This record gives sequence, C-alpha cells and structure tokens, in this order.
Amino acid sequence: MVFLTDYGTKEGAVAAMKGVAYGVDPSIVLFDITHEIPAYNIWEAAYRLNQSASYWPAGTVFVVVVDPGVGTERRSLIMESNSDHYFVTPDNGTLTFVAETMGIKSIRQIDEKINRRSNSSVSYTFHGRDLYAYAGARLASGKISFDEVGPLLMVPPVLLSYQHPQLKADSIKGNIPVLDIQYGNIWTNIPDTLFKKLSVKTGDSISVRINKYFMLVYEGIVPYVNTFGGVAEGKALGYMNSLMNFSLAINMGSFSIY
Amino acid sequence: MVFLTDYGTKEGAVAAMKGVAYGVDPSIVLFDITHEIPAYNIWEAAYRLNQSASYWPAGTVFVVVVDPGVGTERRSLIMESNSDHYFVTPDNGTLTFVAETMGIKSIRQIDEKINRRSNSSVSYTFHGRDLYAYAGARLASGKISFDEVGPLLMVPPVLLSYQHPQLKADSIKGNIPVLDIQYGNIWTNIPDTLFKKLSVKTGDSISVRINKYFMLVYEGIVPYVNTFGGVAEGKALGYMNSLMNFSLAINMGSFSIY
Amino acid sequence: MVFLTDYGTKEGAVAAMKGVAYGVDPSIVLFDITHEIPAYNIWEAAYRLNQSASYWPAGTVFVVVVDPGVGTERRSLIMESNSDHYFVTPDNGTLTFVAETMGIKSIRQIDEKINRRSNSSVSYTFHGRDLYAYAGARLASGKISFDEVGPLLMVPPVLLSYQHPQLKADSIKGNIPVLDIQYGNIWTNIPDTLFKKLSVKTGDSISVRINKYFMLVYEGIVPYVNTFGGVAEGKALGYMNSLMNFSLAINMGSFSIY
Repeated sequence: MVFLTDYGTKEGAVAAMKGVAYGVDPSIVLFDITHEIPAYNIWEAAYRLNQSASYWPAGTVFVVVVDPGVGTERRSLIMESNSDHYFVTPDNGTLTFVAETMGIKSIRQIDEKINRRSNSSVSYTFHGRDLYAYAGARLASGKISFDEVGPLLMVPPVLLSYQHPQLKADSIKGNIPVLDIQYGNIWTNIPDTLFKKLSVKTGDSISVRINKYFMLVYEGIVPYVNTFGGVAEGKALGYMNSLMNFSLAINMGSFSIY
Repeated sequence: MVFLTDYGTKEGAVAAMKGVAYGVDPSIVLFDITHEIPAYNIWEAAYRLNQSASYWPAGTVFVVVVDPGVGTERRSLIMESNSDHYFVTPDNGTLTFVAETMGIKSIRQIDEKINRRSNSSVSYTFHGRDLYAYAGARLASGKISFDEVGPLLMVPPVLLSYQHPQLKADSIKGNIPVLDIQYGNIWTNIPDTLFKKLSVKTGDSISVRINKYFMLVYEGIVPYVNTFGGVAEGKALGYMNSLMNFSLAINMGSFSIY
Repeated sequence: MVFLTDYGTKEGAVAAMKGVAYGVDPSIVLFDITHEIPAYNIWEAAYRLNQSASYWPAGTVFVVVVDPGVGTERRSLIMESNSDHYFVTPDNGTLTFVAETMGIKSIRQIDEKINRRSNSSVSYTFHGRDLYAYAGARLASGKISFDEVGPLLMVPPVLLSYQHPQLKADSIKGNIPVLDIQYGNIWTNIPDTLFKKLSVKTGDSISVRINKYFMLVYEGIVPYVNTFGGVAEGKALGYMNSLMNFSLAINMGSFSIY
C-alpha cells in the first residue's frame, strides 16, 4: 500500500496512519509517494500521484489524502482503474490525472459502517487515519474484496478542470502543471505524442515562450536534445522528461523563472 | 519496529541504525515516526511519540533516541507499557507522555554487555546505532525476551514536569504543548473529557485567550464546531483535534501567532 | 535494497523507482539512506554512502543515483566490494569512499539489453527508475546472479581525487569532507588510527586551526574528550565521531563556522 498526503514528515500523523494499517494486517507492506504536498494542494497531489502510480504493479492500493474538507459531506471512495490499481481518497479532485491516464473501471463509495475504525467514531478531523488508511489496508490485505468496499458510485469522481495542450499550425500551446522542485527544470503538459506532430528532430532549434499569468517571462531559442549533456554546461535545452512531456532545462543549472 | 529520532533525513545516520537492526534479523519490519525532531528537543520527541504510539498494535517496539547526554552516565532502558508496547530509549524524559497515557507495566535497564553491538565498544557518540537499534531489534525479532533485556528498574523513568490543564468555574486553563507545524493550527493539552465539563455544545461560541510567556497575544470569540468546514473559509474555529484535545484553527488558513 | 539519490522527497520520482523495484519482486524489502543529497553533488553522495553502507549485512544491494550525466556515454555498473556489498550506480565517482574502505572485489558493466526496463527505451533522463532500480532489484531478488549483470570491467571506477590527512611532527592536517547538517558539529577526515600517533589522551588540550579556502576562520584550544557531556554546556570539545574521525563540537550548541 502506498501513501500520498500533505501531512508533512515532522510529526506523528503519518506514523499514526501506518500503525492503523499495520494493525489491520502485520504482513502489509507500506510505501510512500510523498507526505510533503503543500497543505491543501489537491492539484499537486493529483499530479504527483499520476507521476508515479503507473510504475507500481497491478493490484497496488494507493491511499491519497489531501483533504481540506475533512469531516464535511464530501464523499469517500475507492476507484479501480482499468490498469487494476486502487485509489482510496476523499472525492475532491485527487483522481483527475490517474482517471485520465489509466481510465476508470469502477468506483465504490466507502461504507463507513464497515470500513472505518470502530473506536474512532468521534474524530472529525483525521479521516486519513480512521477511515482511509483503515479501509485501504483492509482492501490491500484481502480482508475485504473490492465489492465489499461499499456501493457502486454511478457518477464520475470530482475532476479538476484544466486547459489541455493545443496544436496550432507550427506551434503547441500547453501549460506548466507543476514545478520540478529538485532540479529547477520546467515541465509542461505537452506530451511527446502531440510534440511529434511538429516534426522536430533531435538537434533542431525550437522557439519557446513562457507566460506567467498574462505576462511574457521568457522568450528564447533552444536546441531540442535527448538529455542534459546534449548541450554545454549552463546552456538551455528542450527535452522530453521522464513522463514524456516536453520540458526545459539548463545543463547543471536551474531554469528558474518561478 | 518504529524509530523516532532527531537525526534528520539528509545524511546517513538513520540508515546506519536501520542497517544494524536489519542485520540482527532480515525479517524485521522497520517504520519511522519522524527523524525531524528539532535537535535535542526531548519534549517534542515525547509528544510525537505519544501522538502515534497507541495506533500501533500491541507488541510494537519503539526506538526513541533524542540523546543530548549520549555517552554520559544516563541510563538506557526499555519500558513495557500496560498496553504491551515497548519503548527503547535513553532515560531522559522521552517517556513522559506515553507513561501517562499508557501506564508503566515494568522497566528494565539495558544490559550493555549483552545487548550492545560487540564491535562498537569504542563509539561514545552514536548509541542510537550501537545500542538502541541493536537492543530494540533483538527484542522485536524475538532474539531475546523482555526478561533478557537486563535488570528490572525499581524507580520511575525521568519524567518532564509540566502544568496540567485546570478547570476553574466556567473556564479551563491549559497550555500549547507543541506546534501543529504542517497546517498552523493551535493544539492545546485540554482533553475532551475535561472540556465536556464546560457544557459547551457544537455551534456554541467560546471565548479564547492565548498568552505567550506572560503576554496576551490573542483574544477572541470562536464557534465550537466539529471540523474546519463548519465555518466559512478564513474564519477561526475551535474543535477537538485528532488526539481529542481542544484546538484552534482557521478554515483553509493558518492560526499563526508563533 | 537501499536507495541513495538526489531526487528529493517532495515529488513522485522516488516512488516511481520503488514501484519498479517492487514490480520486479513483491517480496523485495526497500530502504533509503537519503534522497536529499544536494542536486548533482556526487561527493556528498559518496560520503553518505560510506557513512552507512558498512552497517548493512553482506549481500545488501545499494542503488546510488546522483547522475548529472544521465543519458550521456558514462558507464553504468555494479561493484561488488570485498565485504560482499553491491553498489548499482552510474560510474561518476559515487564509489570513491566505499571502494577505499571496503575494497573492490569486482565490477560489472550493466548490460542494458537485459537489465533495463523493456518498455522504457525512450526515456533518456530517468535511468534511476528505468535502469538502476530495475537492475538492482533483479540482483537483490535473485532474478539474476552477479555474473548475469554484464561483462566484467577491467578498469577501476571513476574515483574523486582528494587530499588525504597528513601527519607532521606533532600535528595532523586533514580536511572537512562534509557538513554535519543536523547538529552543527565539524567532522574531519582524520581517522582515530592516525590521531593516535599524536599520543593525545582523553582530557588533554589540543590546539585546533580551521581554514576556509585560504583564510583562517577558527583558532582555539579544546579538550579532547569522549563525548559532548565531557565539557560544560556551551563549551567546545574535540572527540571521535561515530565514524571514528576526529571532530569538533559545542556541547548542546552548534560549531557553526560554515
């Protein structure tokens, strides 16, 4: 089972969740995507989930909790993707990208009468521990089948709306969905499948413009290469990142226009 | 086995501890509460331990090392709680809250002649690796029973003194034991059991005053609600946190008077 | 299997690597040294690896990826040490210290035709996920033997050059290879074996000078003691750190001349 939250790693919340999961079945194996999603940032949670989920084998259960609406009427659900991954989460948009890339096989609303810790009926603010980790661990360990999660949901989950990349004559307009925090590269949401329609070959020069809100913040011509070392140190380049989306970088530097 | 230290996550110390534990028995399962306790902060370690320990099943072994006195004469011990959890730690106050909430069944002083890495007799400054991880792993993996840890200790462990919350007529005075780092909420040490004596109902308004040292830093009236979404965004509220202690928050904001 | 990277813990890259490893064999056990090596800092990766590797049992596989040259012609290899540890890494210097302390038994270049994810032939910038985690997991899980990694390499790996500590009459000149981030101590690369030649006894005073680049930044006389508590709070001391290298600290303080 794999966790993704905005709880941070400096205190005891993540360990409380894991203790609950481990208590359901001590043979469960627990992993993390990250717990350092900025507080309440559902968009970034959705992106980081999609960045890593497909690399896990079929059957993996993900517990995704960025939950500003904890304790309110928002639904709690488990989505089964066409790739046979399971996603346990409040229904608030965290499934946006995996629903798109993996496809939705079915969704069940969690029946809290069965799949919630019984001695925790009073806590209104930590469903990650009392509901999601517990329900996820029951599914991951085979204590319940997917059918026993709760009733099928016949409506789609909450999906965040965003602008998809658009091809226009000899250019593509996309956006920058997330910051590449560690290295300072610019990742766009323009996939290689769309980029190929420009007929750009490795080594060609391409013209790039970046707007922040409505202001032009970068304009330049960069070579399109396979990897950072394809240009001299300190030089800008265009490349396909590990998710096969068009990206910009500076070899051994940071493309920081944040 | 579950670790809690102030070693940080940027270097090799935690991995050295885990390597030692894994070397004792490769079937051991290792988890973390956090390694980001501020350096030498025994109080916060005690708090974070208590925040998560009770969610782990009986029999779980915790290795808790925030150890400014490493290498000096302070004792090393393993406490067994009434809830059958085990705590491996230097005797410096880290057990303060779990001793209170779980109760002490018995304490044994670690016999370093048996339960310390034999090829590490020279290191005076990394008992987390050479003593606590090793002794804890031996207990957790069943290589030794609790009786074989060392002699029973007939005195209580070091306990940090602090002011317990007090009920006075129609108010309660407590303190703020720790910062809710991730979300900026204010957690007090006033439990719901004491709070209930005020006969406040969900939706009632309550008057709150916060002093920092001797100075009044906040005064206000907030609604007492179940969860953040019980008020409009940006509004203050009072609620019971996940440990069932009275707390203050701002919905989708930070109650930052730190 | 134990990971060491500069990927950071805020996003999905580490989880993608782990998903790949777990997909190779769900019985694999995964640990981390750290993922917070400063971006591209091969020296620090080499140091942190050596700080913890020897505490893991023989047979442990380490996947070490700080890889500014990803996608270029640099080799990918697995080194077997004389201590029977395995190190999976781009050949860029990360093996400098473990090669020195553990000794090299043999090195094999990874045959990417066999030991690379077959459906990832297009990604040029995430060999940690597509090559190193995958090849390491195959070795760690016994899917391949060390012989099946690829051909023996008959040249040494890339080793970073640095100045070894030197004994001169009644003094030793060494350097400060890394910052002790968490506590603010000063770790040198002067081992206790060399330090002993000075015939300094516990309790003796020693004269210390620290240069930063060519400038003298500290000069003082400190007692040589076993542990921090060997001096009063706030006082400076010399001691052997957990790696048995001469170090400087301030009891309950930070020796910060960074």
